[in-house]
Amino acid sequence: MIAGIDLGGTQVRVAVASPEGEIVAVARARTHALKTPERVAAWAADQIVRLADGRQVLGAAIGAPGPIDPARGVLVNPPNLPGWRNVPLAGMLAERLGGPVRLQNDANLAGLGEYHHGAGRGSQSMVYITWSTGVGAGLILEGQLYSGSHGSAGEIGHMIIDPEGPLCQCGQRGCVEAFCGGASLGRQTGLAAVQIFDEAANGDSEAAAIVRQAATHMGLALINVANLFDPDVIVMGGGVTRSWHQVSPVLAQVLRSSPFVRAWRRPRLRRARLGDRAGQVGAVEWARVNL
Amino acid sequence: MIAGIDLGGTQVRVAVASPEGEIVAVARARTHALKTPERVAAWAADQIVRLADGRQVLGAAIGAPGPIDPARGVLVNPPNLPGWRNVPLAGMLAERLGGPVRLQNDANLAGLGEYHHGAGRGSQSMVYITWSTGVGAGLILEGQLYSGSHGSAGEIGHMIIDPEGPLCQCGQRGCVEAFCGGASLGRQTGLAAVQIFDEAANGDSEAAAIVRQAATHMGLALINVANLFDPDVIVMGGGVTRSWHQVSPVLAQVLRSSPFVRAWRRPRLRRARLGDRAGQVGAVEWARVNL
Repeated sequence: MIAGIDLGGTQVRVAVASPEGEIVAVARARTHALKTPERVAAWAADQIVRLADGRQVLGAAIGAPGPIDPARGVLVNPPNLPGWRNVPLAGMLAERLGGPVRLQNDANLAGLGEYHHGAGRGSQSMVYITWSTGVGAGLILEGQLYSGSHGSAGEIGHMIIDPEGPLCQCGQRGCVEAFCGGASLGRQTGLAAVQIFDEAANGDSEAAAIVRQAATHMGLALINVANLFDPDVIVMGGGVTRSWHQVSPVLAQVLRSSPFVRAWRRPRLRRARLGDRAGQVGAVEWARVNL
Repeated sequence: MIAGIDLGGTQVRVAVASPEGEIVAVARARTHALKTPERVAAWAADQIVRLADGRQVLGAAIGAPGPIDPARGVLVNPPNLPGWRNVPLAGMLAERLGGPVRLQNDANLAGLGEYHHGAGRGSQSMVYITWSTGVGAGLILEGQLYSGSHGSAGEIGHMIIDPEGPLCQCGQRGCVEAFCGGASLGRQTGLAAVQIFDEAANGDSEAAAIVRQAATHMGLALINVANLFDPDVIVMGGGVTRSWHQVSPVLAQVLRSSPFVRAWRRPRLRRARLGDRAGQVGAVEWARVNL
């Protein structure tokens, strides 16, 4: 059997699958309840062994919030997991499982999951964008996950779209995330990202106006994504899927306003299908092709 | 033998190489003098046969200014070749040569040339940026040319870096090309792109100020390129190489101003090495791997 783990700031999810990638059992826990990296690794190993139910475990892949060092299997200092600094999580799990463990960026693996089993099925090159508290991306180019020379490609949230724009937490001005990220929207409303998208969907006019405004900026980001990556499909996941009916017409309109995108590229814009399961599905896929 | 053709607005270049890609002979002509697509195809075929000197020609690749349709081998309506509309150049040449002919974007093939035989040698993932009258790019990701689902990836010149910026010829506002392209700089100075870069290199203070200002905008584009593609090397070619000593410190400084780029990505910035030969060298490489 192989395993895929999706480690988030809120939940840890484990999926156990056949060597061909068919998921047979899943488990999850609250990240906070497990507290330390050691206990997360121990819990994940225990669950994998339990769910494998006596069958041999060949190895696993973990999706984790960046920045990570995928070559060494280390979480560097993820803002979403305070206190996790230079944690060699892949090695810690590998030791307990007795098999190889690969580490990848969580948005990359969610993108891989959507590409193979969700909204990206049938596409050639797909850009997956997750838009929640932060803004991240996974690049599946001609069927392959592209993660860059240092494992940190696809940082769409920190693409500068206006050098006079608001200051971003990263230190740059006018990043996509500074305009659109839920944390930034939250400062305007006092709500969490998911709540803003929910309120907008429920007809709250202030939330809807904020979400529409953010969507016009995200639309500029999508123009750049189309002009740089020329994907046939762009999939959007994360909290934004909750107010998709409010957001997607704005995104489509801004995309159409670009003559080059309209004439040559026309990526199809799709809502993610796998929801919270995208990460674990992608982790299983990554384990399948990389073990 | 195999052949590589680089079709530019000014010159057409032909290189004939061994099946392993070693160039044995080259020829060139002025595009204007040949006038029509038919005469360009006829001239290229004649040169290839002449340079092959009795040896069999297995096929060829052509680099041409976009937009192109690589799947059909058609130049759509390149601004740099007025009057060329929907020209099936690959088919026209294939008929005369009696072998397969592939068409690719010129910046893509120049990038491929620099990757294998120029400033990108030894890199894993490289972004090649050509900065002259226009601004284009070629993406060589993990050793493979990535050209997107519709053959038009890497359109860095039309990345929006300021939605309130100057109107671009493409119809968008605030594109990289509207800030930095030689055509745009020329409107400020009355000089051609190459002349501006030359004047800046020769110490002309007005030209140097314009080039430095343009370089700060190009630096923002490089931050976005680093955050999106995470290449280990960025190679810059085109007219800008003439004032590289004026431009490169500005580019490097802007790149370093991005905390994420400084911390995680640090692409090496290099000046292109192959000059005007990059296109034909890349075309031979493309022929070698795709025939």
